[in-house]
Amino acid sequence: MITVTAFKWVPPFAAGQVRDHRVRWILNEAGWPYEIRLLDAVDQKSADHRARQPFGQVPTLEEDGRPPMFESGAIVWDIAERAGVLIPSDPVMRAQVLGWYFAALNSVEGALANVAEAEFFMPDEAAKAVRRPQVVPFAEQRLGELQTALGGRDWLVGEDFTVADLMMSSVLKIAASLKLLEAFPALQAYHDRCLDRPAYKKAVADQCATIAAHGPRDMRYREAQAAS
Amino acid sequence: MITVTAFKWVPPFAAGQVRDHRVRWILNEAGWPYEIRLLDAVDQKSADHRARQPFGQVPTLEEDGRPPMFESGAIVWDIAERAGVLIPSDPVMRAQVLGWYFAALNSVEGALANVAEAEFFMPDEAAKAVRRPQVVPFAEQRLGELQTALGGRDWLVGEDFTVADLMMSSVLKIAASLKLLEAFPALQAYHDRCLDRPAYKKAVADQCATIAAHGPRDMRYREAQAAS
Repeated sequence: MITVTAFKWVPPFAAGQVRDHRVRWILNEAGWPYEIRLLDAVDQKSADHRARQPFGQVPTLEEDGRPPMFESGAIVWDIAERAGVLIPSDPVMRAQVLGWYFAALNSVEGALANVAEAEFFMPDEAAKAVRRPQVVPFAEQRLGELQTALGGRDWLVGEDFTVADLMMSSVLKIAASLKLLEAFPALQAYHDRCLDRPAYKKAVADQCATIAAHGPRDMRYREAQAAS
Repeated sequence: MITVTAFKWVPPFAAGQVRDHRVRWILNEAGWPYEIRLLDAVDQKSADHRARQPFGQVPTLEEDGRPPMFESGAIVWDIAERAGVLIPSDPVMRAQVLGWYFAALNSVEGALANVAEAEFFMPDEAAKAVRRPQVVPFAEQRLGELQTALGGRDWLVGEDFTVADLMMSSVLKIAASLKLLEAFPALQAYHDRCLDRPAYKKAVADQCATIAAHGPRDMRYREAQAAS
């Protein structure tokens, strides 16, 4: 049996965005059953969870007979390879998929995360106003370059949806939540196309249902902050 | 024949840090010969280079009979797999290596890159003073968590240096250049251990020799800025 860690509750801006949706998504694509272990903020900082995840984050994946895995990028690639889904068997195409997979996580996500930091984590409007011009133009540049590279194609590599599209569209959820995709209609259409997959819809619906069923008290934020 | 792109010149703080050192390093480990194609700032923004690298960055890797690859994370993993070096053949250990490989690029590099942005790219001391407390504590937290996870071991996974150590130590070069490693002696020792490999030393010496042989005029910065 496979067990994936996820949060009991997150603030509204993060519902549907927490990275366990990526692992749920690929497991749904593979048709591999899994259970979710919910963590609150105290669990997250526990030695027990640190042994699974050195940075105290989610998701992790535990599977009988294997040590726990962490990092959504690693877990999704590993499941896709082992299940034989969403990775082309042709080695040359596989290398192209690998390139775009890392591009999502390293060339696109960082640029978007900097904008998200400004919008969601900066304390006041004055701090946001200073930070936005430092980060928004670069995020827009990267989105424009991605849209140009995609051109008129449906998917990043070849004729089919691959794990590169899974990861890129997951990363672009950050851009969508920041209203940055609206200026890039072809990228918006690509994003919509990727997220139309049933395996994605179930992944996010399941994450959001859990969050909706819990509340801030279930994350025990105050206790965790006092303990940290 | 393999061709890797690199820059003719970069400012002193970036010499030895440009990501083509990762690709040179794994190619040296594999014993695969390669040529370097040097780019100035105009070449970097050309349609020719964009066809290889959609974001106009280095490195890329071209090889007879294959489309160009981009993203140092993808190239290094692909070479290591194909050459059969620095990746354990045991699938369970391989999955652990994959986890730490992504951790380097996604959980550690971003935290360090935010400090580097403040120190190397912010225009004045006032802007740096605002930004440092927003980014330095988190970078230090990640470095501390990494040091704890490493414990008393020599390498991240198993008994041997792997591609996870290659990527983590490359990422930690950013911390070293920011003097952030000094507070983490076990991590500093790990970093020194990783960088003691001849394949690394040759990679960085070659990159730095090229940069020393050129100057700012060879990057044609002004023309590139005027054209952008």
